[in-house]
Amino acid sequence: MAVHLGPNQYGKAENRLVTVSRNGSVHTLRDLTVSTSLRGELAATHLTGDNSGVVPTDTQKNTVYAFAKEAPVGEIEEFALRLGRHFVGSFEQITGARVLIEEHGWGRIAANDHSFLRGSDEKRTTAVTVENEQAWVVSGLRDLVLLKTTGSEFHGYPRDRYTTLPETDNRILATAVSAQWRFASLDVDWAKSFAEAREAMLAAFAETHSLSLQQTLYAMGEAVLETLDVEEIRLVMPNRHHIPVDLTPFGLENRNEIFVATAEPYGLIEGTVRRAKSPVR
Amino acid sequence: MAVHLGPNQYGKAENRLVTVSRNGSVHTLRDLTVSTSLRGELAATHLTGDNSGVVPTDTQKNTVYAFAKEAPVGEIEEFALRLGRHFVGSFEQITGARVLIEEHGWGRIAANDHSFLRGSDEKRTTAVTVENEQAWVVSGLRDLVLLKTTGSEFHGYPRDRYTTLPETDNRILATAVSAQWRFASLDVDWAKSFAEAREAMLAAFAETHSLSLQQTLYAMGEAVLETLDVEEIRLVMPNRHHIPVDLTPFGLENRNEIFVATAEPYGLIEGTVRRAKSPVR
Amino acid sequence: MAVHLGPNQYGKAENRLVTVSRNGSVHTLRDLTVSTSLRGELAATHLTGDNSGVVPTDTQKNTVYAFAKEAPVGEIEEFALRLGRHFVGSFEQITGARVLIEEHGWGRIAANDHSFLRGSDEKRTTAVTVENEQAWVVSGLRDLVLLKTTGSEFHGYPRDRYTTLPETDNRILATAVSAQWRFASLDVDWAKSFAEAREAMLAAFAETHSLSLQQTLYAMGEAVLETLDVEEIRLVMPNRHHIPVDLTPFGLENRNEIFVATAEPYGLIEGTVRRAKSPVR
Amino acid sequence: MAVHLGPNQYGKAENRLVTVSRNGSVHTLRDLTVSTSLRGELAATHLTGDNSGVVPTDTQKNTVYAFAKEAPVGEIEEFALRLGRHFVGSFEQITGARVLIEEHGWGRIAANDHSFLRGSDEKRTTAVTVENEQAWVVSGLRDLVLLKTTGSEFHGYPRDRYTTLPETDNRILATAVSAQWRFASLDVDWAKSFAEAREAMLAAFAETHSLSLQQTLYAMGEAVLETLDVEEIRLVMPNRHHIPVDLTPFGLENRNEIFVATAEPYGLIEGTVRRAKSPVR
Repeated sequence: MAVHLGPNQYGKAENRLVTVSRNGSVHTLRDLTVSTSLRGELAATHLTGDNSGVVPTDTQKNTVYAFAKEAPVGEIEEFALRLGRHFVGSFEQITGARVLIEEHGWGRIAANDHSFLRGSDEKRTTAVTVENEQAWVVSGLRDLVLLKTTGSEFHGYPRDRYTTLPETDNRILATAVSAQWRFASLDVDWAKSFAEAREAMLAAFAETHSLSLQQTLYAMGEAVLETLDVEEIRLVMPNRHHIPVDLTPFGLENRNEIFVATAEPYGLIEGTVRRAKSPVR
Repeated sequence: MAVHLGPNQYGKAENRLVTVSRNGSVHTLRDLTVSTSLRGELAATHLTGDNSGVVPTDTQKNTVYAFAKEAPVGEIEEFALRLGRHFVGSFEQITGARVLIEEHGWGRIAANDHSFLRGSDEKRTTAVTVENEQAWVVSGLRDLVLLKTTGSEFHGYPRDRYTTLPETDNRILATAVSAQWRFASLDVDWAKSFAEAREAMLAAFAETHSLSLQQTLYAMGEAVLETLDVEEIRLVMPNRHHIPVDLTPFGLENRNEIFVATAEPYGLIEGTVRRAKSPVR
Repeated sequence: MAVHLGPNQYGKAENRLVTVSRNGSVHTLRDLTVSTSLRGELAATHLTGDNSGVVPTDTQKNTVYAFAKEAPVGEIEEFALRLGRHFVGSFEQITGARVLIEEHGWGRIAANDHSFLRGSDEKRTTAVTVENEQAWVVSGLRDLVLLKTTGSEFHGYPRDRYTTLPETDNRILATAVSAQWRFASLDVDWAKSFAEAREAMLAAFAETHSLSLQQTLYAMGEAVLETLDVEEIRLVMPNRHHIPVDLTPFGLENRNEIFVATAEPYGLIEGTVRRAKSPVR
Repeated sequence: MAVHLGPNQYGKAENRLVTVSRNGSVHTLRDLTVSTSLRGELAATHLTGDNSGVVPTDTQKNTVYAFAKEAPVGEIEEFALRLGRHFVGSFEQITGARVLIEEHGWGRIAANDHSFLRGSDEKRTTAVTVENEQAWVVSGLRDLVLLKTTGSEFHGYPRDRYTTLPETDNRILATAVSAQWRFASLDVDWAKSFAEAREAMLAAFAETHSLSLQQTLYAMGEAVLETLDVEEIRLVMPNRHHIPVDLTPFGLENRNEIFVATAEPYGLIEGTVRRAKSPVR
């Protein structure tokens, strides 16, 4: 039958890489989850099982660990670029690579220079795409959980026969931010850009008097674009509802003090903020 | 600054809907997770917090439950189409809707006609997109976990300095299939097409003597295209590694009998199979 | 200071063991998660780091895999007894062992004798304790998810100022059963006893007209004690609430047809059913 | 048949309670998960479905939310005692209550006094048991994830035919601490005791040169008993293995720099440290 192979890629996902480097007695810990995917002339393995072009996912895994030793890991963007360029540069049939890295944060225990305490679930992320000679970097974060106890309203929305939601001029606003910003070039101070983008998002979240989560999302995206030389930022922000509990059956008045946090269903707000002349990819 | 709003959508995710219908003493149970997202002229809420166009996610949720009562749910594709068309048809500013539904399976307990037993984690899925007058349906399944104890080889791959994987002519092949097939029209027997596609994939998985997971993936996709009038199928198949345990330190020979199942890292194989003349969207 | 070591144990948790056995072309798949813990004269390692008595958890893991090769695994109770007795019998300082095994179910794909499909999340379990010359077996299951669409009421409960729950004579009853039954002896047909206990619980769940989840729990426990020669059964049954959606705001009547399944909070019912003369341990 | 009801309890699990209190513009956020269970004369509901003694789990939930309004929540131990005593004191047939509370941490965003950032997964916990006139408090924490990059050895263990583990005088030691300490009285500064116990555990983890995870566990327990007037502490500490990657196939030497963090299987170390004259309960 006239069918053919469409877009495809393969790789090794969720390689857990922990590195320790030492500067005298001061140890530095890095905790990464690395996923690699390769693309290219891969029709043969799909159609006939001829694997002569298939760099094994096990080899991809080994390469991650070996590369962490052969040179300092550096910022996650640098490590991802190094890995992606290696795969595309080393195998003729591999024309593209995608490397995703998440970095998990640890703090120090004051007692000495080699003891650590796991931080929050927030992850710094990068997604690097290498295609032949070119490379693109999209960095960001996820699972940054934020909450405001005031400064958030929601009203003025259209009503139909299915609308029961009461309007509010004072609600809890809570979300778990996923953000990805696309850099225009590779000539970037990756660590500084991450710190600045995160700081800009935190400030925008806190300081925006919010009439909708969409408004907060846009303000956070705009703040990143004002701070970094990035082309666009994509934000995914679930609305983690905190519902005021009706205490009137118990003869009590809930003055925005007592809430039930619900896990599902949840609002899901997704949006992109772009620099005006940014080329669409 | 010259920034502007790019692609965006918002909705209510993971509405858990369970329905019971009765035909005399015989009860029928449906167990769905429904997520809706709306798109349209939504710049105002992002830029100024003007919510006059924002159909609340709470209203979207209510609509899901009310619609389940107003008419029989039917197949998940029908329910998703009904919901999507309602949102786009009822609100001028809403020009697009995306409705995702997962159906969870239950079996019957023999003792009577109203007792049920939860099945596997496998879910039947649909993703329906309505844009103005048009609609597209992409249906599928996920978390279909399959395993073959033989009939799978992997060898003939390129080796470099990072390659340590031994070749094998007999390995366990295990995966959790996610598949999504895109229909060319809406004139479809949804239930029959699902049953046939699933059956075709099971048979192809079992009967393909596999030289790579890519080959199995392609065979499964091809089998669906031979069975259904769909334009393309996208498959995501993690390679759930089952590693033979080295028993030689204990003076024992492992003749492909004893394996450790590992959760991470895992191979991740993604591919699309298309009908030759299928228009690219 | 006058402190001392109290009860303690250590081991290797969640060893994933998959075995394949072959009878001609017919393959049999076993999928187990094995956890071992050892107890004994272990004060030295706690107080001074002297590990001369500490059988490494890595050795415990190796033993699990080697034992799966040295003799057929058999029923999970047999395998757990074999492992527990080995540890207690082989190391003088180890006076007790606890072995937990969960078995995950797979079905066959009809196409051939070596292809399998993962079943539900339900697990068959055993917890074997070996102390010196003695052994006890507590077997059971968990994550058996059951639901009745009728035949469940809840009323007649006391009311206080915090009570708002409406009484109902027809509700959905859903739960995920965890059950553990303690055998009086080791002379048991393990496979048969499991099948019979499970069947008895399914029938009791379906056939008990339930006035409370406690009543259903007791009926299920009683049914197992009527079926097996076990001393007691302990059941943990969360009440997975299915709440009828109030459709009156939309001018619709919900005649026990439309429900929202909620994940949290949940009722949690725990109870034990004992044979009258069973010695209390 | 001669069977009877053994130990049993029932309640509402995982009530998510978020409270906001305001001191002028400075907001304080509390984020708790509360589970309650009641015990008493509950045979009737099990045996006949007579619910005249069953305080509904829904009422238990309502009570949690109402109590959070009726008086300040205070420390989690205080709130749990208040709830437990209410249930036992208000219903004659309820003779015991068990209240479990977990508190989730949030930090402040500097920008203002009402914006917060979710902290780590670490939870402060309490388990309060009220029986008639008496009450016991067991407090602690869980999911405190700690790691040392040096100062941990493991050697001198017995070897048998299943031992392959190499000895090491320098390994990564990582764990997720669960600790529960049992107070001798209720006349306690709960907040101070928690802070001191946590600090003592962090210091003991960091400063103990570890020859086994058991030694570290005991040192942490001993440190808490030296700090607080508690009768005993129970610690559960999985060994989160970080395995040095063998880089020799790539011509590289891994000098304790490159590790793979594995999720399963894991060592599991459990132990209790008691004050010498502590009465055994």
